[in-house]
Amino acid sequence: MFKKYDVIVAGAGHAGCEAAAAAANLGSSVLLITMNMGTIAQMSCNPAMGGVAKGQIVREVDALGGYSGIIADKTTIQFRMLNLSKGPAMWSPRAQNDRMRFAEEWRLALERTENLDMWQDTVTSLIVKNDTVCGVRTTLGVEIECNAVVLTNGTFLNGIIHIGEKRFGGGRTGEKSATGLTEQLVELGFEAGRMKTGTPPRIDGRSLNYSVMEEQWGDENPGRFSFTDVERPTEKRCCWITYTNNNVHETLKEGFEKSPMFTGRIKGLGPRYCPSIEDKINRFAERDRHQIFVEPEGFNTVEIYVNGFSTSLPEDVQYRALTQIPGFEKAKMFRPGYAIEYDYFPPTQLDLTLETKKIANLFLAGQINGTTGYEEAASQGLIAGINAHQKVHDLHELIMKRSESYIGVLIDDLVTKGTEEPYRMFTSRAEHRLLLRQDNADIRLSPIGHELGLISDERLDKVKQKVKNSDDIVSYTRTKSVDAAKLNPLLEELGTSTLNQNVKMFALLGRPQVAFDDLRKADASLEVLLSTYDKETVEQAEIKIKYESYFDKELEIVERMRKMEDKEINPEFNYHQLQSLSKEAREKLMRIKPRTLGQASRISGVSPSDISVLMVHISR
Amino acid sequence: MFKKYDVIVAGAGHAGCEAAAAAANLGSSVLLITMNMGTIAQMSCNPAMGGVAKGQIVREVDALGGYSGIIADKTTIQFRMLNLSKGPAMWSPRAQNDRMRFAEEWRLALERTENLDMWQDTVTSLIVKNDTVCGVRTTLGVEIECNAVVLTNGTFLNGIIHIGEKRFGGGRTGEKSATGLTEQLVELGFEAGRMKTGTPPRIDGRSLNYSVMEEQWGDENPGRFSFTDVERPTEKRCCWITYTNNNVHETLKEGFEKSPMFTGRIKGLGPRYCPSIEDKINRFAERDRHQIFVEPEGFNTVEIYVNGFSTSLPEDVQYRALTQIPGFEKAKMFRPGYAIEYDYFPPTQLDLTLETKKIANLFLAGQINGTTGYEEAASQGLIAGINAHQKVHDLHELIMKRSESYIGVLIDDLVTKGTEEPYRMFTSRAEHRLLLRQDNADIRLSPIGHELGLISDERLDKVKQKVKNSDDIVSYTRTKSVDAAKLNPLLEELGTSTLNQNVKMFALLGRPQVAFDDLRKADASLEVLLSTYDKETVEQAEIKIKYESYFDKELEIVERMRKMEDKEINPEFNYHQLQSLSKEAREKLMRIKPRTLGQASRISGVSPSDISVLMVHISR
Repeated sequence: MFKKYDVIVAGAGHAGCEAAAAAANLGSSVLLITMNMGTIAQMSCNPAMGGVAKGQIVREVDALGGYSGIIADKTTIQFRMLNLSKGPAMWSPRAQNDRMRFAEEWRLALERTENLDMWQDTVTSLIVKNDTVCGVRTTLGVEIECNAVVLTNGTFLNGIIHIGEKRFGGGRTGEKSATGLTEQLVELGFEAGRMKTGTPPRIDGRSLNYSVMEEQWGDENPGRFSFTDVERPTEKRCCWITYTNNNVHETLKEGFEKSPMFTGRIKGLGPRYCPSIEDKINRFAERDRHQIFVEPEGFNTVEIYVNGFSTSLPEDVQYRALTQIPGFEKAKMFRPGYAIEYDYFPPTQLDLTLETKKIANLFLAGQINGTTGYEEAASQGLIAGINAHQKVHDLHELIMKRSESYIGVLIDDLVTKGTEEPYRMFTSRAEHRLLLRQDNADIRLSPIGHELGLISDERLDKVKQKVKNSDDIVSYTRTKSVDAAKLNPLLEELGTSTLNQNVKMFALLGRPQVAFDDLRKADASLEVLLSTYDKETVEQAEIKIKYESYFDKELEIVERMRKMEDKEINPEFNYHQLQSLSKEAREKLMRIKPRTLGQASRISGVSPSDISVLMVHISR
Repeated sequence: MFKKYDVIVAGAGHAGCEAAAAAANLGSSVLLITMNMGTIAQMSCNPAMGGVAKGQIVREVDALGGYSGIIADKTTIQFRMLNLSKGPAMWSPRAQNDRMRFAEEWRLALERTENLDMWQDTVTSLIVKNDTVCGVRTTLGVEIECNAVVLTNGTFLNGIIHIGEKRFGGGRTGEKSATGLTEQLVELGFEAGRMKTGTPPRIDGRSLNYSVMEEQWGDENPGRFSFTDVERPTEKRCCWITYTNNNVHETLKEGFEKSPMFTGRIKGLGPRYCPSIEDKINRFAERDRHQIFVEPEGFNTVEIYVNGFSTSLPEDVQYRALTQIPGFEKAKMFRPGYAIEYDYFPPTQLDLTLETKKIANLFLAGQINGTTGYEEAASQGLIAGINAHQKVHDLHELIMKRSESYIGVLIDDLVTKGTEEPYRMFTSRAEHRLLLRQDNADIRLSPIGHELGLISDERLDKVKQKVKNSDDIVSYTRTKSVDAAKLNPLLEELGTSTLNQNVKMFALLGRPQVAFDDLRKADASLEVLLSTYDKETVEQAEIKIKYESYFDKELEIVERMRKMEDKEINPEFNYHQLQSLSKEAREKLMRIKPRTLGQASRISGVSPSDISVLMVHISR
């Protein structure tokens, strides 16, 4: 009934969809198995993509040939570039999305992907021979052969939903959980753990009083995630901001004794940086208010997502607290918030390719690896899907470097350090974040995507052209001088010192007060030049002019570190023979099996002196 | 947390959505409770609305102020008026629909409906006091008070899905079943039964070879369901026709020993007129092929519905049989067909308002009453929602007559005769089908919808205007003569005898061969007149001219029967005291408690002589 597939992907969330699309686009025959073909690519939590560090990841996924950026662009109801007042390394694209459209566009994109079949069913166990996965078994009782499996089960493995003291089995609200896989993997020797995440109530927008909230519109000239020319909606939607207060907090506290978080009923650790509202008022008792973002779920629906109010308190407590928030006095809930506990597999059991160390050709991606966030999931799915294809076709593996991408940071962190709580990306996790910017994700990663075969020649050429064009603009500013007398009034206006003599544009643009947009108004020749290029090319040139010296310094550091970073270690090396290593280091190194000295240095419990011992040994 | 609602509707399929919208539009405060707000108004089976007798029902629902016609029109990918070669009583509108769009439009329509709240949860029991329902309890553990409840649980009550020898709990594939309600209702004294229905596999359209199938396009100038001016898609999609053959049948037979239909594993009776493919080849062993309609599930999706191939055979047998159908040689399944067994409540336990006889203010609608079909469900939901509103506001009840609507036939059949197998509407079930046409549903029922408050003054005025305009056209043809000499060539062409003298247009149009469209080409004055009216007005006039004499005869019959039909009986009448009634009649009459002598006459087991006894008694 089924042919033997190259790759089977179990789960069609952000990770599973990217994994299936990537492997199929590379030429693998792929079967995507999902419980319900009607709920592919759900935004289970907030109706938004991107944000600080996460927006960078979406652009990286796009530059490597993933779909998330394209789908997000097609369904954007509001777009904002966050942190524009900071340096370009902090600029972070974020979009609000139409949740129904987002899921539908993903489904249609998968349907249009060649080599990609779909099957509605649930994987209940793997077929494993000689420590290699070679198929799956399902609820319907079918066995399907394959050469590689990517598991992207999200919150579905033994999922338990908590609302107050009530518990239900479920992978998401209204949906079944999945059983069997965890038990089998544990039997095969895997370590499994429990994690917890949560979601806020959904509200009928018709019951809210927006007049007492602050409007929050997106950017007037919105940017985008994808480096391709995706048709984006022209309409926009507004979000709103409101705040909790002491009354809200006191009401919430009345439910604490029934809170599954505080009674110890929930064992799994939740996402520290995406805490529930009860967590926030508990941990930050001194704060008398917390911000609430009121986000529409789409262009036409009245459903509202109450960002900042994730909770698993009893639904009546949720309701009473909610209705004390300004604007929410008459709020009607569509459904309460809830917490969900689910199985994950500590990611130190993975290689940097996201293949498990124990079972060959078995890859894990997304929340099953202990992460949180659509973006983190999508990027892992992409890398797992690529590596599954590469592995079954005897092609080179793809290991993303920390110095070239957030995706590299994410996977290296997971695999090397593991995570005890849902892992979320931050710019602070990337030591070379100056280089890992949203504006240059295409420049950094398109060549990798192209080499794999996910990025077309045309698309790579466009990237090269963008680099050349922005370099041309920079060169122009290095040679062209400004007319001091003519420009001084503008400089005065901008609050920067006037010029005594003509200087090169490049020098003037080095001043933080002076932007291309100012200078082009005052200099017709510059205007003529810039008007021939698109917005992103000009932006790239401006970023180079203003920050290149910092980037160069960062690159030097990368280069210096690379020597250690890239020093390879045989993953089969027996650390127990190096008695000069600390006992803890020996154990951790044996468990993680680092690929390089750099990776070894990031293992918690491996000290600098341990690294010296290793260096000496490796150099011999 | 919840206010007390006028009406709570449990279930958001076709019945539940109509019930909730109708009660809310009449002014009741309504809460619609659904397991999953993401799966409202799913077309669980075929992506189509209408068909013979069913299309008439959709138009009736529209004329009464329901939404189904509007939603269907908005999402039509192909429209056909069936049976155009027969008389207008047989003309039946049918649309293929975009399944995702259909569900989304329903959801948005509900969101725009005032007085209508939604809550994602599952009703597990009713709160009943003094034999009157006054609230519901849910899975989340909340109790919500109300004055009336409409249960529209579809196939979810203790739903069990069968595929070959495999069984799973579920309300639909990939969705949970609902438990608790049946058990409580049985405890309250209700009789419950099991029914069965099924659905075919879904196929990846990219794997089909359409070149060997027959194309089936919709009408070039498509009609519509709704009498309102709904914006309809301009694009159209094609369907295809192919056939099974003996190889397909032989392969299917290999699975018979594992068929839950034949092994006795499925106890519930399935829909006789929508049989599974295994049923068809079993019951019609002499036929060497069965027609298969290949229907796209929407404008953009590649998913295909295999109409005519409903099956619960093992999935590998389904697959092997499917791939022997011409065009399906390389078919890839998205999911197998399956059968589902579910609880229903024999509808003789209902009043003609769809209120239960045992528990006041409790209404049942849709598959829970033993029916099949979206249209049958939607129309019951509408009537139940209306009557729930009327009851809790002490307004008159709405009982649809058999002589005025298919909806009346449906409900009277259910309540009076009950049903042992899923009930489907046919034109043959309506004794006055000549009057119950799709073209006059607005004329028949808009006044009722208007009197209730579901149809606006403007809309009723439009109907009245349509009647007046079509009457004007008829009058014109009665007074205006044709020029025989000028017309004879046309008559010859049309294959009808030529004229020796001028006759009235009316007389000429009485000939079956001569249509308005022919005559207007030959008569400029008629063309001028007709061009000032819309298509449906002209059609109405033409139907009157050609068939009015038949309609008049039918109306006479209705009138003659009305005397008996409308003769009221006290529902509390004790038939046991009438010893001249047969024992069976006494028992059935006590159980059904007919409202009128007409209803009594349709109870199986009540003979004409029993009716005579009753007539004598009532006349006293």
